[in-house]
Amino acid sequence: MAKKKTSTDINQNNQQNAFQSNKQKQKSFQQKKAPKRSFKQRNGSQKKYRKSTVNETPVRISFLGGLNEVGKNMTLYEYKDEMFLVDCGLAFPDPEMLGVDLVIPDFTYVEKNADKIKGIFITHGHEDHIGGLAYLLKTVNIPVYGTKLTIGLIQCKLKEHGLLNSVKLNEVAPGDVVNLDEFSVEMIHVNHSIPDAIALAIKCEAGTVIQTGDFKVDSTPIDGGMIDLSRFAQLGDEGVLALLSDSTNAERPGYTESERKVGESFDVLFRKAGKSRIIVATFASNIHRVQQIINVAASLGRKVAIIGRSLENVVNISANLGYLNIPDNVLINADLINKYPAESLVIITTGSQGEPMSALSRMAFSDHRKVEICPNDYVIISATPIPGNEKTVGKVVNELLKLGAEVIYEKMYDVHVSGHACQEELKLIMGLVKPKYFIPVHGEQKHLRKHAMLAEGMGIPTENIFIADNGFVAELTSQSIKSVAPVPAGKVFVDGSGVGDVGSVVLRDRKHLGQDGIIVVTASLDYETGQLIAGPEVVSRGFVYVKENEELIEQARRIAERSLENCYYSNISDINAIKGKLRDAVSHFVYEQTKRSPMILPIIMEV
Amino acid sequence: MAKKKTSTDINQNNQQNAFQSNKQKQKSFQQKKAPKRSFKQRNGSQKKYRKSTVNETPVRISFLGGLNEVGKNMTLYEYKDEMFLVDCGLAFPDPEMLGVDLVIPDFTYVEKNADKIKGIFITHGHEDHIGGLAYLLKTVNIPVYGTKLTIGLIQCKLKEHGLLNSVKLNEVAPGDVVNLDEFSVEMIHVNHSIPDAIALAIKCEAGTVIQTGDFKVDSTPIDGGMIDLSRFAQLGDEGVLALLSDSTNAERPGYTESERKVGESFDVLFRKAGKSRIIVATFASNIHRVQQIINVAASLGRKVAIIGRSLENVVNISANLGYLNIPDNVLINADLINKYPAESLVIITTGSQGEPMSALSRMAFSDHRKVEICPNDYVIISATPIPGNEKTVGKVVNELLKLGAEVIYEKMYDVHVSGHACQEELKLIMGLVKPKYFIPVHGEQKHLRKHAMLAEGMGIPTENIFIADNGFVAELTSQSIKSVAPVPAGKVFVDGSGVGDVGSVVLRDRKHLGQDGIIVVTASLDYETGQLIAGPEVVSRGFVYVKENEELIEQARRIAERSLENCYYSNISDINAIKGKLRDAVSHFVYEQTKRSPMILPIIMEV
Repeated sequence: MAKKKTSTDINQNNQQNAFQSNKQKQKSFQQKKAPKRSFKQRNGSQKKYRKSTVNETPVRISFLGGLNEVGKNMTLYEYKDEMFLVDCGLAFPDPEMLGVDLVIPDFTYVEKNADKIKGIFITHGHEDHIGGLAYLLKTVNIPVYGTKLTIGLIQCKLKEHGLLNSVKLNEVAPGDVVNLDEFSVEMIHVNHSIPDAIALAIKCEAGTVIQTGDFKVDSTPIDGGMIDLSRFAQLGDEGVLALLSDSTNAERPGYTESERKVGESFDVLFRKAGKSRIIVATFASNIHRVQQIINVAASLGRKVAIIGRSLENVVNISANLGYLNIPDNVLINADLINKYPAESLVIITTGSQGEPMSALSRMAFSDHRKVEICPNDYVIISATPIPGNEKTVGKVVNELLKLGAEVIYEKMYDVHVSGHACQEELKLIMGLVKPKYFIPVHGEQKHLRKHAMLAEGMGIPTENIFIADNGFVAELTSQSIKSVAPVPAGKVFVDGSGVGDVGSVVLRDRKHLGQDGIIVVTASLDYETGQLIAGPEVVSRGFVYVKENEELIEQARRIAERSLENCYYSNISDINAIKGKLRDAVSHFVYEQTKRSPMILPIIMEV
Repeated sequence: MAKKKTSTDINQNNQQNAFQSNKQKQKSFQQKKAPKRSFKQRNGSQKKYRKSTVNETPVRISFLGGLNEVGKNMTLYEYKDEMFLVDCGLAFPDPEMLGVDLVIPDFTYVEKNADKIKGIFITHGHEDHIGGLAYLLKTVNIPVYGTKLTIGLIQCKLKEHGLLNSVKLNEVAPGDVVNLDEFSVEMIHVNHSIPDAIALAIKCEAGTVIQTGDFKVDSTPIDGGMIDLSRFAQLGDEGVLALLSDSTNAERPGYTESERKVGESFDVLFRKAGKSRIIVATFASNIHRVQQIINVAASLGRKVAIIGRSLENVVNISANLGYLNIPDNVLINADLINKYPAESLVIITTGSQGEPMSALSRMAFSDHRKVEICPNDYVIISATPIPGNEKTVGKVVNELLKLGAEVIYEKMYDVHVSGHACQEELKLIMGLVKPKYFIPVHGEQKHLRKHAMLAEGMGIPTENIFIADNGFVAELTSQSIKSVAPVPAGKVFVDGSGVGDVGSVVLRDRKHLGQDGIIVVTASLDYETGQLIAGPEVVSRGFVYVKENEELIEQARRIAERSLENCYYSNISDINAIKGKLRDAVSHFVYEQTKRSPMILPIIMEV
């Protein structure tokens, strides 16, 4: 029921005056269109800004996430008294962020300016662009704008967080323009590894800023058509103040292959699999990949089962919204896979990154409820490991091989293509958009730098290229781009239901505990005399295997006892001083004996 | 002094009767040489074994490490009552082996058979082949055989462990044959990323087994000459029972490039660096790489400084033993680098894998005592990340870039070549050796499988290919290869000075502590009545930031108090039962509040 209500909200919003229809708006922009000019004339093309305002009001762009990191993309635009956001993603924790479930942007600056913020525009439905949204919307309730599939995926998230009824979700389509007071935001269709991705053309009196979102140039995509290059070209001709472009693949020369290539590989490999059961692991959100697997399976008379919670979710949403076309009688219930012969089955599953709790990992370690891997299995890992995941993916491959399965996991088989533009595509967009200022976004320093080098190679002057960091604020006018006072933009850790209650102190302790374990020394002292009346007891966890090291623990206990006696006879009665002595004595002894430094936690009770 | 003594030992050993000179031995083998025959006739070539013994005594090969893993290579050969070992390496801990410093093989089986073991042959001086040796030699004192540089590096290790005077080190050279009672072991020169690497031709009545060690085929190596292919060919013609070959690069098609290629790249890049200071990070043991850096530096009139402890060690040993040729007045003291202008300096350093404590990492994070990175630095990372290190290497690159340095880190610049044979080289060795049985070693399952597939492609029947695991024992005769009862061959963890005192229980606790932290609940009860007389106190570490969560901790304390009171009124007096109740109550409360499961450690003192 909650869902229905929201659908109504969306429709209402669609009819609100903030919207103009695609055609109306394009017309109004066309009227303003500047005469065509070449890239070389770029500087000249900005003259209108110079002429129109002597003391121009700058447009401000605050980078709240996604720079010098992969993930948690979030950008804030500000002109005069109006603000809006683009994306609100999460990042997955680095290995040193022990116990952290996910990382979201710091919302301090957003909360402070909540009344100025007119909305948040979401470029596509990947976690690094929508994963922080539920946490944001718990603190500030602002309208959300996204394309149909993106909104569908967001609804699913908000439902989990119990926010579905309180948030205004506005469905937009490529070509639509949302008019705020100072800004207008136009959606432009781009290709990516999830359908319905958009770039944004953001206009205000200061000029036009284009934010690409994640994109690639796919001339033969599975669905939805090629990226709207002509709109980028039109905007470029009209004059673009700044381009914020996706740096993920800036290190890679050439072009990213079309998604269609993967389908061709599936066709070859599925035939090669012969009478084996086929299992394909891929990213849950790559609907076009799933579509291709289903198509090839159907063409060879195989049934398809979907296994893995996130994949089941996304497949359901996509099929309901018309983004996935499943022929009749192809999909079977995952509980029934053992009723079909191996040669007439394809299982699509999650875990292409070797995630330990994923379906493929469980299968590899013989721990999956429904699928038992056997020598008659033909497993295709339709992904390349994201940096940092090479070893976990390798482990899954090794375990599958040990169970006798054939495993296709190398790049050479073309079972994966990236969703991000490589160098030639990045240059193509720059060439079409002809921005005055260039700001590489989405990536680590090495990606941003490489992207900046490409821009220099395209003739954009070094001083017009802005490499930012999270928290940076860029102030842009037709005359200059400059960095002004930064805003808060750190990492906020989500652990269990806690948001932000784990910080550097807790992480430092977790690291210490994880590396060397803990020794707890407890003792009861007489409240009045300070004399030892019970203990000390020494209990360790994660330090040594106690059963085989009783002598060591007993020695530590005696050291602690002596330390307490020394305090008593030296008239040291301050509890913190006693604890300090105890910690030093035990720590020193333990290091001498083992060359290790477990955390020493003295607890003194006064009775 | 200790060093001198051992040198004398080595010389004495060299003169012992166990040795024959290279030429003598080669002659004696030539007398036995079988007539030349083609690979296709391989099965026929084994006939002599069949004829000679009806009930043949098998040669046994026990795999004590290096299979289904990268590192801790160790193999045991056994014929009749004689045994010897090949290599004794270490492995670096996986990320889940929290706090573990290194991993060594399980020596149980070796210790049990110590009196039968005549020696240990070391193929080369890399950690994954010598890193466990000091730990082995502390338990069993057996003679060590290795080439000059290998022995030099081993001496350095044994010195650290105070073992230099108690161990017999025997220097051998390619072409030498060591005759034991049942076995003879011949050293064969191979190319690798450390000088003085050897393969072993192991002969006994059961036949010849060739173990390649780590190798590549480099037709233009920097020093020491090309791998002795002709000796492999001769042995192949004589008839080889089994080949154990290096699988590290079995997934990679083609040939590994010559080390000389890297020197050519250095020449180009050093010139490109112009007036910048050059910093090259590489593997400490890659002496030929260091030689090439020194050569190019000298040719351009730059001085060279060596920074990084392991590199300084290896450079000293190599230069002393004649493996590194340093022109006069090129090497400068690392303390004096700031006295030289940037353009006349090359710094060679460690940290090419992004190791957090390495010199390059410290430089990148502005934490190095001697080197401060600046925009006038030109940094070359002369290595590719070992799987699992991609992210740490990426971090170092990002930080160097942020400090303004230029960083050369991609494959495209040819600043690194592998030390291991690719598919064509692996096939070449198989083609020359023509083994009856093939056993891929050194690698994970995926490497072993791929190597096995290459062997099948070469015409070795599937049933003659043996994919083993650590602990497997292969029993080989001219008639068959079979797996017999396994031997202990697990992982032994070294943590600080402790060897084997950290096991799965300790690691499980460390993981738990590292993920969620710990809550210690202490209370004092009256010994006689069981009544609470002090506490409970609740102390947490690595759970939440306590200052901002005092209320949560206080609530937990009250829950604990109520639990203890309930025990008292319910007449529960067994300490373990009370602890159990306490743990359950606090754990349940904490999970409800935070969706986290820290370790709950109740400590009850009876007063």
